Amino acid sequence: MLSTLALGVDIGGTSTKLSLVDRSGVILQRAVFPTQSNGQTDYPTTLVEAMQKLLQYAPYPLEGIGVGAPGCDPVSGYISYAVNLPFSTPFPIRDFLSQKLCAHTVLVKDSTAAALGEKMWGGARQMENFVLVALGTGLGSAFYINGKIVEGGHGLASELGHTIAVPDGRKCSCGRHGCLETYVSATGLRRTCQALMGQEIIPSALRELPQSALTAKTISLAAKEGDPLAQMALEDLSRRLGNALAAIVLQTDPEGIFLSGGLSNAGPMLAERVAHHMNAQLLPAFRGKVKVEVSRLGADTAGTLGAAAQVYLGAPVT
Amino acid sequence: MLSTLALGVDIGGTSTKLSLVDRSGVILQRAVFPTQSNGQTDYPTTLVEAMQKLLQYAPYPLEGIGVGAPGCDPVSGYISYAVNLPFSTPFPIRDFLSQKLCAHTVLVKDSTAAALGEKMWGGARQMENFVLVALGTGLGSAFYINGKIVEGGHGLASELGHTIAVPDGRKCSCGRHGCLETYVSATGLRRTCQALMGQEIIPSALRELPQSALTAKTISLAAKEGDPLAQMALEDLSRRLGNALAAIVLQTDPEGIFLSGGLSNAGPMLAERVAHHMNAQLLPAFRGKVKVEVSRLGADTAGTLGAAAQVYLGAPVT
Repeated sequence: MLSTLALGVDIGGTSTKLSLVDRSGVILQRAVFPTQSNGQTDYPTTLVEAMQKLLQYAPYPLEGIGVGAPGCDPVSGYISYAVNLPFSTPFPIRDFLSQKLCAHTVLVKDSTAAALGEKMWGGARQMENFVLVALGTGLGSAFYINGKIVEGGHGLASELGHTIAVPDGRKCSCGRHGCLETYVSATGLRRTCQALMGQEIIPSALRELPQSALTAKTISLAAKEGDPLAQMALEDLSRRLGNALAAIVLQTDPEGIFLSGGLSNAGPMLAERVAHHMNAQLLPAFRGKVKVEVSRLGADTAGTLGAAAQVYLGAPVT
Repeated sequence: MLSTLALGVDIGGTSTKLSLVDRSGVILQRAVFPTQSNGQTDYPTTLVEAMQKLLQYAPYPLEGIGVGAPGCDPVSGYISYAVNLPFSTPFPIRDFLSQKLCAHTVLVKDSTAAALGEKMWGGARQMENFVLVALGTGLGSAFYINGKIVEGGHGLASELGHTIAVPDGRKCSCGRHGCLETYVSATGLRRTCQALMGQEIIPSALRELPQSALTAKTISLAAKEGDPLAQMALEDLSRRLGNALAAIVLQTDPEGIFLSGGLSNAGPMLAERVAHHMNAQLLPAFRGKVKVEVSRLGADTAGTLGAAAQVYLGAPVT
């Protein structure tokens, strides 16, 4: 097999990450730059320069470029609805990069990219049916059923984060109330802590922190150190996610569920707690059959690996 | 194209229905007998006799036999877990019928059969992604995604009826509490009416009926005639089903949702009310995109048509 490379690009609200990845999933070179830098007026040009710089180190021919981004349309190749990205109007990023770098380019939703990375190099390699849950600022998801990503009849699938978990519950950034991601995400975890501080009288180290320091990271750390309020918040998140996953398991019976995103490492027990609550809501025949595990691709690199996987999965093996 | 026939068999708890169906979905002959008749000791023999009698009228060659049944295992060909069927031990019905009638035989879950009928001859003919909801004694379902029935990683998919709709809610026959089918099914509708009779003080014709006459049929009829308690019960069912479907739409974005089963015709407005509640729980981008409609295959014949469809869908067109 001829050795080739894929350039995986992960465009996030905070940073843009790039990796040169070979077919076995080894990252040969990496780069990262802030997506929103002060005074930056031309993000596309900055992106192309970063890509060109990285490609100077490519030891093998480039098979293609994979770009993962939130709110993109893989069919048209446009990034249109990403409120956190520096494109004020819909931007035809696929064709733009394809021309600038003279390389086959594919565009893919960020959560879909994470699922494809899991399929190609992670825990889902042997699976034809699995679910990926990305615990980030929001709650992303991707469904892989019968050997294919579920895109839906209108290209809108995988909005698990916006299923209603609590009727008339927390206000969501989508304008509605009670969406699952207002409880199950880094932001949701923070809101749960704030609510518990008002609700409960137990002491907690989190009460001493300034509001700005109350993050998923500090809450996870506090939970690991035994802080009861932080543990209560993580238990709430695990229970709600477990309940939501139970419904999905009863409907589509996947082989595995993978948790990715920064929050997925919150406490060594998160995946176990989620599985516990999920199994408690399943018919006996389903219990214990569906693996719930944290993605092993790494929170920092899963995005670029997934974007690169799309290049290899879409291209025939040569 | 050579004209052939499929024999569709629909084994239900009350009756067993049979239809000789041609490739265009026309039923040439039908038969029906009670599944549980007094003094009946050998159901398989009775079934074979009914099939042989029907086949005497076959004007074209038989392409195959399709059998739809609850609680069956399409892979092994056994009916094992159907509490309402007259098999005290797991019965290898596929091989039994295949040998007795010298014909290719396929076994399929009843709700899967209904979905395949919808795909072959119903409203889903042009769809690659749809959901079928069977409103009967229980709540059956089938998911058709990316052009295939979702069977799941362990063959357990499509238990929509046993997703938890109300934590610590109504006791379900599965032993747990709050399953969707305890609210959304013919049995669920009856239980809702009973609960509302205790809860509300509005007059209702249903209060005059003996308990045994309180059925999905009498409740639907009362609702059509304007009975406020019956309408309240159907509204409750529509809202709960709409909410459950909204979650499915956000996750898998189907093109259509089909309601089948006896209760699907309860009031001309049921599909509309379900769609209304579903759309109210969707992100704006999804609203109005997913058709919700009553199956046009007919409650009496959908089961046999679906079982027959499995024969044609599995076999190459000759």
